[in-house]
Amino acid sequence: MSRVRVHNFSLSLDGFGTGEGLSHDAPFGHAGERLHEWMFTTRWWHETTGEPGGTGGLDDAFARRHGPGVGAEIMGAGKFGYPGWHEDPEWKGWWGPNPPFHTPTFVLTHHPRPSIEMEGGTTFHFLDTSPAKALEAAREAAGDQDVRVGGGATVVRDFLAAGLVDHLHVVVVPILLGRGARLWDGLEDVQKDYQVEAVASPTGVTHVTFTRAGL
Amino acid sequence: MSRVRVHNFSLSLDGFGTGEGLSHDAPFGHAGERLHEWMFTTRWWHETTGEPGGTGGLDDAFARRHGPGVGAEIMGAGKFGYPGWHEDPEWKGWWGPNPPFHTPTFVLTHHPRPSIEMEGGTTFHFLDTSPAKALEAAREAAGDQDVRVGGGATVVRDFLAAGLVDHLHVVVVPILLGRGARLWDGLEDVQKDYQVEAVASPTGVTHVTFTRAGL
Repeated sequence: MSRVRVHNFSLSLDGFGTGEGLSHDAPFGHAGERLHEWMFTTRWWHETTGEPGGTGGLDDAFARRHGPGVGAEIMGAGKFGYPGWHEDPEWKGWWGPNPPFHTPTFVLTHHPRPSIEMEGGTTFHFLDTSPAKALEAAREAAGDQDVRVGGGATVVRDFLAAGLVDHLHVVVVPILLGRGARLWDGLEDVQKDYQVEAVASPTGVTHVTFTRAGL
Repeated sequence: MSRVRVHNFSLSLDGFGTGEGLSHDAPFGHAGERLHEWMFTTRWWHETTGEPGGTGGLDDAFARRHGPGVGAEIMGAGKFGYPGWHEDPEWKGWWGPNPPFHTPTFVLTHHPRPSIEMEGGTTFHFLDTSPAKALEAAREAAGDQDVRVGGGATVVRDFLAAGLVDHLHVVVVPILLGRGARLWDGLEDVQKDYQVEAVASPTGVTHVTFTRAGL
């Protein structure tokens, strides 16, 4: 059975996966890029975006686990676009013509639209359904490869609450956002099904992984 | 000027400093002892309670910073006793005849009572006042030594919000409590005044310290 994995999911120290006030010009609201700076500095991110340079080391090693072995992604409407993107028929996500997914990518939305084939192997499919049903579709698309749940916080939380996540990698960034979308709400004792490990990076972030017992 | 320090303040990964359902028989509610097991296993704790053994290493090194240089403690009513302790005239805290504070200890409560002198240098004083006023009293009692803010979550949060904390040591325990008293609420961007450092322990907890810039 293919696994369900979450990678590079950044969280503030007070547990927010994104800020407040999301818009076309502020994809993470008042959080800005602060939750993701650790990732933008890695060599992996530079390779992904075609820029030279970047840092190796711990953050890079974790970050580049994002791709290998993944055959499909599931994301929420809030990751695919700004609030109200469904009213823009031309909206194709934040990532330009060649998004960094390179697989079938299932967008959970109450406003489905026809699939969009992008460059580089990414095809966006739009589903108005439950996490479990979306996972069925993604698993079929992924073949024998794993399915990545890409976020945002609400979608990761829903998949965790439904017991569908096999591996979770969160990156705790030492800032206090104070407001936004919380990851952990309503997940009391969810760690009981997992081996939890924490590694602090010299950059100040802490990588915390949940791996399902027996995997 | 003496500093204001918080040590060994345990937090669940979802940010709770204690559980729900606190009572005489459950000082931390449904959290039980899970937030503090890392501390109970240290050599420092064993020394404090007069038992042989305990572990050295990272957790022990952090834990034993609790005492040195501290001349007074401030704690909340919820640390001193169970909900309703103020109706019990015999209540003298959880810690037996020789509490592990060994200094004047100021209890913030809306139900003040006469001071109680314990063995080993601890005297409990009861104040119905603001964090800033309590700090004035504690500083005077501490002489040129530091003041420790002992918790619980609400009191640490109030001192942080008032800008009164110089050094904060929280210990993030990899469990999800789901409910209880949150430390971080309403503290957006409080990290800006501090150098924040994180160290993951082989035991699974992560020590996070906030040190005021310039100290």
